[in-house]
Amino acid sequence: MPTPPSDLRDFSPLVIENLQPDVGAGRFNVKGVAGHPVRVSALVYKDGQDFLGASVIWRRRDRVQWEESPMRPLENDVWEGVFTPEDNAAYVFSVEAWMDPLTSWADRTRKKAGVNESLPIELEEGAALLGMCRGKEAAAQASRWAERLMRTRGNSADILGMLDDPEFWNFVPKAKLRFFVARHEERPIMVDRPRALFGTWYEMFPRSQAAVPGAHGTFKDCIRRIADIREMGFDVIYLPPIHPIGITNRKGRNNALKAGPKDVGSPWGIGSAEGGHMAVHPKLGTLKDFEAFAAAAKDAGMEIALDFAAQCSPDHPYVKEHPEWFRRLSDGTIRYAENPPKKYQDIYPLDFMCVNRQELWEEMKRIVLFWAAKGVRIFRVDNPHTKPLLFWRWLIDGVQKDHPDILFLAEAFTRPSVMKFLAKAGFTQSYTYFTWRNSKWELTTYLEELNHTPMRNYFRPNFFTNTPDILQEILQKGGPPAFRMRLVLAATLSASYGIYSGYELCENTATHEGSEEYLNSEKYEIPSRDWHAPGNIRDLIAAVNRARHDHPALQQNGNIEFIPTRNDAVLAHVKWDDGMTDIIVTVVNLDPYAVQEDQIQLPIWKFGIEEWQTFEMRDLLGGDKYHWKGREHYVRLDPSLGPGHVFHLKK
Amino acid sequence: MPTPPSDLRDFSPLVIENLQPDVGAGRFNVKGVAGHPVRVSALVYKDGQDFLGASVIWRRRDRVQWEESPMRPLENDVWEGVFTPEDNAAYVFSVEAWMDPLTSWADRTRKKAGVNESLPIELEEGAALLGMCRGKEAAAQASRWAERLMRTRGNSADILGMLDDPEFWNFVPKAKLRFFVARHEERPIMVDRPRALFGTWYEMFPRSQAAVPGAHGTFKDCIRRIADIREMGFDVIYLPPIHPIGITNRKGRNNALKAGPKDVGSPWGIGSAEGGHMAVHPKLGTLKDFEAFAAAAKDAGMEIALDFAAQCSPDHPYVKEHPEWFRRLSDGTIRYAENPPKKYQDIYPLDFMCVNRQELWEEMKRIVLFWAAKGVRIFRVDNPHTKPLLFWRWLIDGVQKDHPDILFLAEAFTRPSVMKFLAKAGFTQSYTYFTWRNSKWELTTYLEELNHTPMRNYFRPNFFTNTPDILQEILQKGGPPAFRMRLVLAATLSASYGIYSGYELCENTATHEGSEEYLNSEKYEIPSRDWHAPGNIRDLIAAVNRARHDHPALQQNGNIEFIPTRNDAVLAHVKWDDGMTDIIVTVVNLDPYAVQEDQIQLPIWKFGIEEWQTFEMRDLLGGDKYHWKGREHYVRLDPSLGPGHVFHLKK
Repeated sequence: MPTPPSDLRDFSPLVIENLQPDVGAGRFNVKGVAGHPVRVSALVYKDGQDFLGASVIWRRRDRVQWEESPMRPLENDVWEGVFTPEDNAAYVFSVEAWMDPLTSWADRTRKKAGVNESLPIELEEGAALLGMCRGKEAAAQASRWAERLMRTRGNSADILGMLDDPEFWNFVPKAKLRFFVARHEERPIMVDRPRALFGTWYEMFPRSQAAVPGAHGTFKDCIRRIADIREMGFDVIYLPPIHPIGITNRKGRNNALKAGPKDVGSPWGIGSAEGGHMAVHPKLGTLKDFEAFAAAAKDAGMEIALDFAAQCSPDHPYVKEHPEWFRRLSDGTIRYAENPPKKYQDIYPLDFMCVNRQELWEEMKRIVLFWAAKGVRIFRVDNPHTKPLLFWRWLIDGVQKDHPDILFLAEAFTRPSVMKFLAKAGFTQSYTYFTWRNSKWELTTYLEELNHTPMRNYFRPNFFTNTPDILQEILQKGGPPAFRMRLVLAATLSASYGIYSGYELCENTATHEGSEEYLNSEKYEIPSRDWHAPGNIRDLIAAVNRARHDHPALQQNGNIEFIPTRNDAVLAHVKWDDGMTDIIVTVVNLDPYAVQEDQIQLPIWKFGIEEWQTFEMRDLLGGDKYHWKGREHYVRLDPSLGPGHVFHLKK
Repeated sequence: MPTPPSDLRDFSPLVIENLQPDVGAGRFNVKGVAGHPVRVSALVYKDGQDFLGASVIWRRRDRVQWEESPMRPLENDVWEGVFTPEDNAAYVFSVEAWMDPLTSWADRTRKKAGVNESLPIELEEGAALLGMCRGKEAAAQASRWAERLMRTRGNSADILGMLDDPEFWNFVPKAKLRFFVARHEERPIMVDRPRALFGTWYEMFPRSQAAVPGAHGTFKDCIRRIADIREMGFDVIYLPPIHPIGITNRKGRNNALKAGPKDVGSPWGIGSAEGGHMAVHPKLGTLKDFEAFAAAAKDAGMEIALDFAAQCSPDHPYVKEHPEWFRRLSDGTIRYAENPPKKYQDIYPLDFMCVNRQELWEEMKRIVLFWAAKGVRIFRVDNPHTKPLLFWRWLIDGVQKDHPDILFLAEAFTRPSVMKFLAKAGFTQSYTYFTWRNSKWELTTYLEELNHTPMRNYFRPNFFTNTPDILQEILQKGGPPAFRMRLVLAATLSASYGIYSGYELCENTATHEGSEEYLNSEKYEIPSRDWHAPGNIRDLIAAVNRARHDHPALQQNGNIEFIPTRNDAVLAHVKWDDGMTDIIVTVVNLDPYAVQEDQIQLPIWKFGIEEWQTFEMRDLLGGDKYHWKGREHYVRLDPSLGPGHVFHLKK
């Protein structure tokens, strides 16, 4: 649009600007979800006083035919419309706008009718416009209106009668009489399947799932665990790498630099004589066993997410087969991987910028497609921020071209610019800073950024309460009340969230004060656990996840509003679905140590509830029902009894 | 950058994003001024931990060679740099970034030196990098550093000694050893001459300048007025249209629909049998007379701005010569021009979207180039928002291609989107909403938008106190104190401002209550004035304009900060120049009716003044000198004595 017209014959005087949603002026995909409406807005205007019209247009990228839905003007030249892409596929959308000569004519004629008794010129103008309508149905209707217009013989009162006829205004948009149609340049949107937005994750080490304490677990053991996990309401079971583990420089217990003969090593030290990224660790079973596990999970309504860690143990077959993929020092050695301050002495980084990077990149894509062929539809990508950022765009575009249902979660704990870029580059979901946001100010500021800035167009958070690398201080010190509180926060603040197994048992011993590493971390050894040990919070997890499954308000982002509280230890928020038919009010005590009270200010006017009306508040965690009236309500939150409330507000 | 690399051989892992300043992702020119530094910033980052470097690069669009100046990292991956375009010309600029392998090597080596006694590998790496330096001078220096490195024989202490040598760090940027250089796409910037930013305008009707009261003035009369105007400190004399005026439908006094035989008509009713847009009204003199006036103004250090109103009286030669440029109703008549609610019965609009618009547009450009050939370098464009908005981009681009010194002021009083678009489309300056912004809240909000949002990159305000169409209510009711107050506001809030003549005489009679039209408006008749009548505010105008000429702080936009005041009738602000060597503090009483007092909070810490220091405040309007100490100061503003203060703060 804004370039000076080189050929003035193809020139529309309309301006369409500031098309939203947008990521990087159309360079990156906006993120959408199949079946979810996309709200589109743009500035539409031209010189002078003409009436304009505008539509959202959209199509699947692989189709030719555009679909169209009308936009309506708000104020200051902002127009808004909605379209709903139904398929899990790449789409493009745009805005078309035009001069609407019929409405301009009607407006002019109406004004003149107040002054003149006869309007012969307007009669002719109107008839001429109606005569321009094309398309069988539109032309037929137009000719009927033209006849009626001619019958007025220019009498103002009769013309006014026609312009006051609602039927005429039904006809005008159908006439599709559009002058100087302008079109904004297309914007791409990747429409994912619903799991991209809403899902509950459970991370577990398959080797830790043996029924016999201390034994090396197998995929068969994993199958036995499925009912247990499903009972807690999870949707996704995420597995750390399942490949053979190297022996050279293998880590011992508690990250020791030397492993003992029985030490199992870190699953991220991928590759040995038994194979690399396309092999399964022999002690876990066979590829067939993995497929059986994935199938069983699917039968239980869940799916498996695999870890994709693009790195190698020194024993990985690539090291010998593709020495050119590794950067060697002048003495021929390879420098081990780092993600400062962490050092991975058991891992060699791949040199993604090596001279024959094309082959390396293709091989990485082959790994993903290999597992895709085994039915894996979600990949959790390890440390993507230590590989060239645009590699991920290349990989994800390449994979999703044929497999739009494959989702990628970025495990990048790094600077904001890099985390944002990875999301723009195509990662379906992203790990976040949630793990370290504890105070009301920290949480609300971060959630405002995620939900109410342009980040919402491309960055989908997945809030993990903990990971094998991150046992947050508040969990170490706050014990079970802290575990309950952080669970409810994660589950209600983000449509996707997850826990790393052991969380349900409130495991909270760190290696030492000031460390976020678990003592006797599962990364380096096989633990013994009783999944139903006393003190577990399985029931709370199940209740929270049931609330999430039952309530659309908890299955979206961008629909959160914080409720003013006076007490800084009380966080309250409300979420609702599109039609505001489902309203969830969450009140959490951020202090795991002490009872906190507050007077909260419920914005009932937003829900169409009057001050005098009684409404029902059912606590989805405990099941208690309250009847409230008015906006001001007292809450008392005792961490020894529970984390707070997740209320379903019923009008 | 962000597209997936199709050929991985040409691939940089660096990301450069969010390049500022920018208007519409590079589709429109940023605005700059010759000799003024342009501050450039961008996000620069990559995966991993490498050290990076970045430069601003720029060139005149008509030159091939790029110039370069270094950027430095601030926080969160933001880099910043400055370049100063010296010529009045179109430029492009961008950012280049790269991996800096020498610094990465030095950092790694330094860390290892603390642990190892000998660093043979780092020695070899360093030598290899130094061996890669190209360019005669860089290579020679690099080889000297390589020799020194080899002499260390890998001894950590000796290598550290070299890395601690400041000379080495002087050498590193000169080595220009840059890996994987990435370049952001170019951004265009139109570098105008300084008058585009800073200037003081005086609008006058040439026909009103006769020495004999009531006589039709001439360009010769205008020459006589020059000294008078210069004395008040103006830079630009802007003339309403100087062309022959039509007779058909000519307006009478006070916008009467019928003119009397002696009525002179509106200068905007352009064109008669005597000629059109390239002719001069015979009563004003000849083209030669006009040129003499322009030359005399130039000799006095001023220049002439001409009105460009792309419209015709019914008697304009175009109406007969180019009937196809006008839209005719079915009865063959042409609908007169409107700019609702204003009606111009004496004017036909040109149909800029007519079928042969190419010829019409070219003719419009010919008009501008005709006057350009007569030495006119500023055009004030009448109602540009009633012509296709992109016409202006076409016109201004076309004219400035060969005449970058020609400036265009948009007289568009319309919706924000349209006013902004015209500025983006190329208008050097724009009329603003200032005329109707009176309260402290209105003024500060509007000035914040102009100075501290992306508007500042493309929208240059020209604050007019009044125009022939706008006699604001506060001037009608507030009398001379209001005239003084609004003058000081316009002159200090915007680097460009102007008055329409008569302002210096505080002319303030409207046609009727609620109207902004002047009674006996100069648009339709020739007034009689005594330019030195008692009660004039010429001295104040001269003092204000002297302050503007003497103080760089008042010659820029974007450098304003409002000073907190408690009294809503007191507006205070401070402006400073780049080096903060010139600081101007303005305090204005917004209430023309009553004395106002306040305690203002001067942000002396920003000027490097301590609480105990005394500093001089010289009032540039009255000449009084004060010595202040501390941040809190009492002011008492009596509208009968003056509008307030324009202080020069001297440390």
